[in-house]
Amino acid sequence: MNRWNGLSPGELALLDTVFWSTGLSRDALARRSAFSKTRANAVVAGLLERGLLEENGLQSSSGGRRAETLRLHRGLGVLLAADLGATGLRVGVLTPDMQVLARHVESADVRKGPEFVLARVRALLRQLLEQAGRSTHDVIGIGMGVPGPVNFESGQLVNPPLMPEWDGFSIRDDLKADFAAPLFVDNDVNIMALGELWRLQRSLHNFLVIKVGTGIGCGIVCQGQVYRGATGSAGDVGHICVDPSGPRCHCGNLGCVEAMAAGPAIALMARAAVQAGESALLAETLASTGTIRPEDVARASRAGDAAANAIVQRAGGLIGQMLASAVNFFNPSHIFFGGSMMRIGPLFLASLRQSIYQRSLALSTRQLEIQISPLGEQSGLIGAAVLAMQETLRMKGAA
Amino acid sequence: MNRWNGLSPGELALLDTVFWSTGLSRDALARRSAFSKTRANAVVAGLLERGLLEENGLQSSSGGRRAETLRLHRGLGVLLAADLGATGLRVGVLTPDMQVLARHVESADVRKGPEFVLARVRALLRQLLEQAGRSTHDVIGIGMGVPGPVNFESGQLVNPPLMPEWDGFSIRDDLKADFAAPLFVDNDVNIMALGELWRLQRSLHNFLVIKVGTGIGCGIVCQGQVYRGATGSAGDVGHICVDPSGPRCHCGNLGCVEAMAAGPAIALMARAAVQAGESALLAETLASTGTIRPEDVARASRAGDAAANAIVQRAGGLIGQMLASAVNFFNPSHIFFGGSMMRIGPLFLASLRQSIYQRSLALSTRQLEIQISPLGEQSGLIGAAVLAMQETLRMKGAA
Repeated sequence: MNRWNGLSPGELALLDTVFWSTGLSRDALARRSAFSKTRANAVVAGLLERGLLEENGLQSSSGGRRAETLRLHRGLGVLLAADLGATGLRVGVLTPDMQVLARHVESADVRKGPEFVLARVRALLRQLLEQAGRSTHDVIGIGMGVPGPVNFESGQLVNPPLMPEWDGFSIRDDLKADFAAPLFVDNDVNIMALGELWRLQRSLHNFLVIKVGTGIGCGIVCQGQVYRGATGSAGDVGHICVDPSGPRCHCGNLGCVEAMAAGPAIALMARAAVQAGESALLAETLASTGTIRPEDVARASRAGDAAANAIVQRAGGLIGQMLASAVNFFNPSHIFFGGSMMRIGPLFLASLRQSIYQRSLALSTRQLEIQISPLGEQSGLIGAAVLAMQETLRMKGAA
Repeated sequence: MNRWNGLSPGELALLDTVFWSTGLSRDALARRSAFSKTRANAVVAGLLERGLLEENGLQSSSGGRRAETLRLHRGLGVLLAADLGATGLRVGVLTPDMQVLARHVESADVRKGPEFVLARVRALLRQLLEQAGRSTHDVIGIGMGVPGPVNFESGQLVNPPLMPEWDGFSIRDDLKADFAAPLFVDNDVNIMALGELWRLQRSLHNFLVIKVGTGIGCGIVCQGQVYRGATGSAGDVGHICVDPSGPRCHCGNLGCVEAMAAGPAIALMARAAVQAGESALLAETLASTGTIRPEDVARASRAGDAAANAIVQRAGGLIGQMLASAVNFFNPSHIFFGGSMMRIGPLFLASLRQSIYQRSLALSTRQLEIQISPLGEQSGLIGAAVLAMQETLRMKGAA
């Protein structure tokens, strides 16, 4: 794309600033960039002319006149985003300023292996592109989140406990034939953290994003950046021990919080409650559907079933116990919760909160805020698109 | 000091690079700085002339000729460093390139309060200055580590559990009358981490430094910087719960690792072993001295006493259990151990190692190195001086 050619580092930095501060006025942008106001205006004029930026309409300003805001030019193309969970996938087509043009959610089983799952992702992305009135030539970058540890450089999964069939598989090679645009893969919780960081316009520097679904994972934002650790496995909190005499986890250890409090453990506790005759509601579910899924426990809890509520509180208490250690260690300013288990409702969040505050050092929790991720179940999709746009800008800088 | 006047940001950045890469040749320095070789040589020439840098003699080079190395000029003045532990203090006078000119170690009790302890620190620093042939006018910066949470901006302690008398006390104001140089205060474990980071010339980016003494603390280096957390309490791992039915800690919670495995807990376990008739050696110590100190257990363990060894292994196992959580969460490349309890010997380190590897996810430990801090008990003193020099350079930049 010609409009990218010969950009200076200063121009690229300004594009990056616009991307990370959507809705910012020109004046605010100049203040946030390394340039003087005059110089920033000149650079912006050049970028508008080249079709890299466009005006976003007027923003009501605190003073008299109304300030124009800027965004990355939608004519640059579109981003494809895919957020793979252990049991579901979410795909979308987004503009460079994170407007969702088309999206789709469906259940999926990552254990069916990469060929099967990626064939479906590929087909859905093509459908969504068509639905958005775009072609594969319009795609400037692809971002994908997967529920396992990822080598960020190679885009390969490394020993993923929930999806062993994917070990060492190159998603990048698999999708190369379909889309010419570069593909970036990261852990599902890291992209949720990236999505929240974008939503926050980088205004918070040290926070955690916790996903509670089939597994339990943690995205870490440290000093304004997503932190991946020495070998890419930072935030792998699902296998922290909360009870040395607890059940054996698929990782081989005993009493991992994931084995005791994530979706499958919640369903197991519900079966035990039925066997103990503690819940007529859950027994009815088991009788009529032949199984109890985590979402059945969630529904029972919202309906006020005492056994379901006890299960929810136990799971929240165990996850909170694990997070209290993370809070003492990391001293985050915020914890944002996401993932399918958060649909359980306010009782789950209350149990998590209570357990974290009870076990953390007062100094670490004095200003700690704990809430549901404001992007909700979109955080992974948005984050995957942010990853694609961020890395695409970085590549333009390196080119 | 005139030689500091009117430095450009580029010159200050180069001074910083020299400080963080002691023993670097001019060629290597140019490669590590943002300058071309010619430009770097010109800047270095200017800094040599101004008396900010000096040549360090010759370094054997891999090629034929020998390369000159550079260091901050020793004529700039000296740094004062103080490393306060709960039961001991270590003070020193150092050159800008971290050569120790004079130092002193003695036992101390921080619970005697700030006036008492700081009067002693003040007297010792004056003595050491004299011993090094310097005066208070030669002091360019003072660094101090304290065993509690510190508000880094104000230099005040915030709710320190081991030294409640110091809460809100301004060490900076207290020492202002004695030394004109700026004083910087940080947590004792953060300065140990800073010392190791300096020793490593920033070659590692994500590692932990664990101090095991009267308390247990953790210094975190994240993305090449000491990480202090949202409110300065990051690394406060001593109050992570390792046994919900454990004894009550001075923080109010049950089963904190500090209450179960730090120095005082080790001494308590030894008393229990004597009462149970498990150790003739420890019984003898108690009979002859009227008490059992942690160092007595260390000595008994090194002498092969079975009860002492069991205590050491239990303490190491509990601390390792806590650190396994930190490893799963943070995925560091290295863990360095320091603090007085490390004098116990190899059995303690072996127990720590075994427990960490056993409970951490394989992916996090595949490349994890666990060792005694190479700077040993000097790491805090060096770190305090690094803090002083680093912040002094930063102030020159801001001036």
